[in-house]
Amino acid sequence: MAVYTEVTDGMLNAFLAQYDLGEAVAFRGIAEGVENSNYALRTTQGDFILTLYEKRVDPADLPWFLGLLEHLAQHGLPCALPVRARNGANLNRLAGKAAAITTFLPGVWPREPTIAHCAELGAALAQLHQAGADYPTARPNALGPAAWAPLWAQCRDHANAVEPGLQATLDHAVASIIPAWPTALPHGQIHADLFPDNVFFLDGKISGLIDFYFAATDFFALDIAICLNAWCFEPDYTFNRAKSAALLRGYQAIRPLTQAEQSALPLLCQGAALRFLLTRLYDWQNTPEGALVTKKDPSDYLRRLTTFQHMLDGADYGL
Amino acid sequence: MAVYTEVTDGMLNAFLAQYDLGEAVAFRGIAEGVENSNYALRTTQGDFILTLYEKRVDPADLPWFLGLLEHLAQHGLPCALPVRARNGANLNRLAGKAAAITTFLPGVWPREPTIAHCAELGAALAQLHQAGADYPTARPNALGPAAWAPLWAQCRDHANAVEPGLQATLDHAVASIIPAWPTALPHGQIHADLFPDNVFFLDGKISGLIDFYFAATDFFALDIAICLNAWCFEPDYTFNRAKSAALLRGYQAIRPLTQAEQSALPLLCQGAALRFLLTRLYDWQNTPEGALVTKKDPSDYLRRLTTFQHMLDGADYGL
Repeated sequence: MAVYTEVTDGMLNAFLAQYDLGEAVAFRGIAEGVENSNYALRTTQGDFILTLYEKRVDPADLPWFLGLLEHLAQHGLPCALPVRARNGANLNRLAGKAAAITTFLPGVWPREPTIAHCAELGAALAQLHQAGADYPTARPNALGPAAWAPLWAQCRDHANAVEPGLQATLDHAVASIIPAWPTALPHGQIHADLFPDNVFFLDGKISGLIDFYFAATDFFALDIAICLNAWCFEPDYTFNRAKSAALLRGYQAIRPLTQAEQSALPLLCQGAALRFLLTRLYDWQNTPEGALVTKKDPSDYLRRLTTFQHMLDGADYGL
Repeated sequence: MAVYTEVTDGMLNAFLAQYDLGEAVAFRGIAEGVENSNYALRTTQGDFILTLYEKRVDPADLPWFLGLLEHLAQHGLPCALPVRARNGANLNRLAGKAAAITTFLPGVWPREPTIAHCAELGAALAQLHQAGADYPTARPNALGPAAWAPLWAQCRDHANAVEPGLQATLDHAVASIIPAWPTALPHGQIHADLFPDNVFFLDGKISGLIDFYFAATDFFALDIAICLNAWCFEPDYTFNRAKSAALLRGYQAIRPLTQAEQSALPLLCQGAALRFLLTRLYDWQNTPEGALVTKKDPSDYLRRLTTFQHMLDGADYGL
């Protein structure tokens, strides 16, 4: 992550005084994460994560995100539970930003996901989809297919500077993927960003699911497609069908896919690759120098997109 | 910090298997720090810091640094104690880098140091200087005055691009400070980088001194001059004499300064400002884009240097 906002001792103590968490014992910025400032906070009562919401998160969405976390935790998902201040609020202000304290989740995220990790992930994703079913309000997916053409319009002029030929490749992808996008598939609350660094494991089991700040109401199978992008490619960009099959088997043991979802999966995988390619391309062109964050190479997702463009059969995914 | 090196689960588990620390329970990159990769590591035995030594630290110096930490901790200083592997080594290899595990220190570093913080700091610095007295071996200060002219030679051509007039100002400073540098003052092991983010406080008392990787054998009063640079300026670059006086009083209550040290202090403060100005200038010109680290503005230390050039009397420092 990143630490974009400095929090002084006085600010921290005044903030903590609103909670029943005792006094600060340690307070260190966390390096992982891109969107927000995260601190490991130890108080006399235990360990917590303090998050300051930076510009990419719309403050109006925060009650929805924190409510979803609380809902999922109450349904047994290993999510960070927002801690409420004495006045009942789970969202407060710190250093001029919206801020929340959540519980600390143990575990280590897998730098080299295995087939076993993928199987566990598939099961957890299905549980997440089921647990979210009775979370009452919807949040449109701000990075769903409706966002891709406008994003592409903002990046298109400079695309070839990132990689020669990227402009033509993406013109074609945008024109072929968006019009073919399914209009109706089983849907509900999805994580929409469940990369390996958002999933902690302990003794081979999932111990934490974090970073729900892209969560939205959209097709369940899009969430699967995002995970296939994020978990099932090897460092040389070959798709590992054994990992994909394990992920899908883990998922379907809990929530079997409909025929329509299975048929749509190859296109959804292309769409998911396109979504990350576009936002990385945008960030590549727009991240200020000096920000305490590593810009991610858009080309990683170009490789995935072109791979998925040649994987048009369910069997290619281990279905 | 920064996280420059990725550590996979397999690497981490193999590394931990060399120690009697149990299994990893959590492992998160820490955002603070510049020179090395630091991770907060929780094992079934407790909390630790895992440090991977990156290029700026000479591996040949690591036994000296880790030995000093152990020595100071044994003398009651609140330093992180290096943890030894079962084979007795406090220094091992991880992800192709030299790596060490040290104990976790509680506390929060002061974002807005007060007079009371400065008084505590002065006392801790004197204790550090006394405790280091019987640490047997010397380490030349690689960023002492002998290094400044060569560093300046590498940065001089592009200095005016950072700030107009910087070249002439530093030509003058280098030519006036280095020849006047004292040749003999009380000396021993110094921290040489004791900025606020390297000092943790808990309930108003110092609970941790960290980041000894610039420590060296040099004048004690140079360490004081570095602290006066780092702790006693307000955000508008005015020097706060009350903080300086508190720091010096706290120090002298434990180790009184000699007359020669007191006389040299104004020049040492200029030299300390020059040292940080030069290394920041070098980093400003040489840090690769994309490194997960914030480049620090050299101009901060130009303001300090010019302030010290007009503070030639001990009374200006509260002596």
